[in-house]
Amino acid sequence: MTTTTRIVLASRPTGEPCDENFRTETVDLPVPGPGDAVLETLYLSLDPYMRGRMSTAKSYADPVEIGQTMVGGTVSRVLSSDDRSLAEGDIVLGYAGWQSHSVEPAKGLIKLDPTRAPVSTALGVLGMPGFTAYAGLLTIGQPKPGETVVVAAASGPVGSAVGQIAKVKGARAVGIAGGPDKVAFVKDELGFDEAIDHRAPDFKEQLAAATPSGIDVYFENVGGAVWDAVLPRMNTYGRVPVCGLIANYNLTELPPGPDRSAALMRQILTRQLTVRGFIQGQFGSQMRDFLRDMSGWIADGSVVYREDVVDGLENTPEAFRGLLIGKNFGKLLIKVAD
Amino acid sequence: MTTTTRIVLASRPTGEPCDENFRTETVDLPVPGPGDAVLETLYLSLDPYMRGRMSTAKSYADPVEIGQTMVGGTVSRVLSSDDRSLAEGDIVLGYAGWQSHSVEPAKGLIKLDPTRAPVSTALGVLGMPGFTAYAGLLTIGQPKPGETVVVAAASGPVGSAVGQIAKVKGARAVGIAGGPDKVAFVKDELGFDEAIDHRAPDFKEQLAAATPSGIDVYFENVGGAVWDAVLPRMNTYGRVPVCGLIANYNLTELPPGPDRSAALMRQILTRQLTVRGFIQGQFGSQMRDFLRDMSGWIADGSVVYREDVVDGLENTPEAFRGLLIGKNFGKLLIKVAD
Repeated sequence: MTTTTRIVLASRPTGEPCDENFRTETVDLPVPGPGDAVLETLYLSLDPYMRGRMSTAKSYADPVEIGQTMVGGTVSRVLSSDDRSLAEGDIVLGYAGWQSHSVEPAKGLIKLDPTRAPVSTALGVLGMPGFTAYAGLLTIGQPKPGETVVVAAASGPVGSAVGQIAKVKGARAVGIAGGPDKVAFVKDELGFDEAIDHRAPDFKEQLAAATPSGIDVYFENVGGAVWDAVLPRMNTYGRVPVCGLIANYNLTELPPGPDRSAALMRQILTRQLTVRGFIQGQFGSQMRDFLRDMSGWIADGSVVYREDVVDGLENTPEAFRGLLIGKNFGKLLIKVAD
Repeated sequence: MTTTTRIVLASRPTGEPCDENFRTETVDLPVPGPGDAVLETLYLSLDPYMRGRMSTAKSYADPVEIGQTMVGGTVSRVLSSDDRSLAEGDIVLGYAGWQSHSVEPAKGLIKLDPTRAPVSTALGVLGMPGFTAYAGLLTIGQPKPGETVVVAAASGPVGSAVGQIAKVKGARAVGIAGGPDKVAFVKDELGFDEAIDHRAPDFKEQLAAATPSGIDVYFENVGGAVWDAVLPRMNTYGRVPVCGLIANYNLTELPPGPDRSAALMRQILTRQLTVRGFIQGQFGSQMRDFLRDMSGWIADGSVVYREDVVDGLENTPEAFRGLLIGKNFGKLLIKVAD
């Protein structure tokens, strides 16, 4: 195999990404150098942060350049390796992006053990999304037994882990999701104490009914109307880990007034809230604890997970657009090869 | 002495408080009960939080009721005491509010030692404002040597302590104040590294020049335009202790759009900021450390303070209105009696 089929950023989106923002091309792979491995992508992870990388707005990471392969976490099979740490047929976690094959330094890859867990979980419940939930909830949210934890996108990979970890810690978990199927899944399959539909016309009332003692921890991954409904219900000393704002990612300009930032700051002051943004990388030292705890919780049934697998690299742009508006149901993965 | 002259809340202000919101009356003191002390107010502290108590908007403390004496910290002389812990002539810290005399349980009063420090400092640098600076800066702000700490109202009792404590901890202190006299005081007398005038037409540019390495800690006590200028300059992992928002206290409605709360949340996320509201009471366990450290810093000249003393209880409403728009210069006190 000397070529890769890849999807590059063709232009920067305004608002929702469209077909013209992506271009598919098949090109020669680089010639492997000393220590390199040649990889065939099996699974590509799609995650909301990728929308940020398509834009030049200042963020925590550099944007993808025009003409560059879209970035993303991948699980790949080793086709050949110049480094002794990897052999043909090994399965590895890497960051090859939206493409079918890649050449990467073997030292930057993490070898997975397919007998321990399905390798796709390295992109979800046992990967970056699960770790985001774990580190953000436990380090910033610090839920105590009996407290109320609210999380949106509760059927997704981060939200589902947040609520289930909250339950492990003895807190009450309230999940917010879009549509009756997801709501039922969050309550019945994931075991949240309550689940409510943010699309319901009486969403605010439902949230109030589901949080009779107010909200102690709100794990923020969506922003927008959900945050508006949550904020007035935050209890004194409440904690708000902020790991994403998916509802805002396609915004092309600020919403119309009034300017509610003064009201937000007032609420932070008078309720003595802690609002803290984070990227999971800052908690890297907790990764070992995470893998131990999360593997244990999966094994004993405390944490269950759901994957939404879309077949074929060519369907990636469409699936990504759907992710930004909540069309996926569970951790969204592209199955690139068997 | 069997009467007290007191200023009660006559009506709730809309926007800036006016004369009609207050009423002065002279009434009989309650008959002292077992354990009570009869007090003559010497100093009354005026502080921005009092504006919040005049309003019924939900906050961290109950509002002052119509007809009730306006609240406030006081330093008083004991006229008589039914409790052995206090004797006639003792000076005590209490919370008698805007009045000339009061009857309070002796057990709720803190006896001051006039030989250790001027008793008025118990309302300022060695009292609630100084403690607010100390606990908020050290617990939430956590300035490290070489980091940049920015604080507004820098000539006031909280801001001046914040900057000077930051210097003690090896950080760079940048103060924001209103008008050339205060700016000069902050730089020359308080020893901040830089001081800038928020009224200057090129305030934003001056702030940028004064913070060439960005801002690591912003101690928020004003809100408004200063916060708008500071936010884009916050460094990754920046901390924002929020103890007050004086620029917003007289707001009668939210400012016009666009709604920048989404931009604020985005900044919190991408810069991984911690924004945490607090009232000093939550750090009560640090009071002993504060009194030890702050007394030491005053003694060795690391911390200096300035008081703005207005004579006469009758001038309290006018002085309070001035406080909300920055007319005071230093810790504002009403001298009620000698």
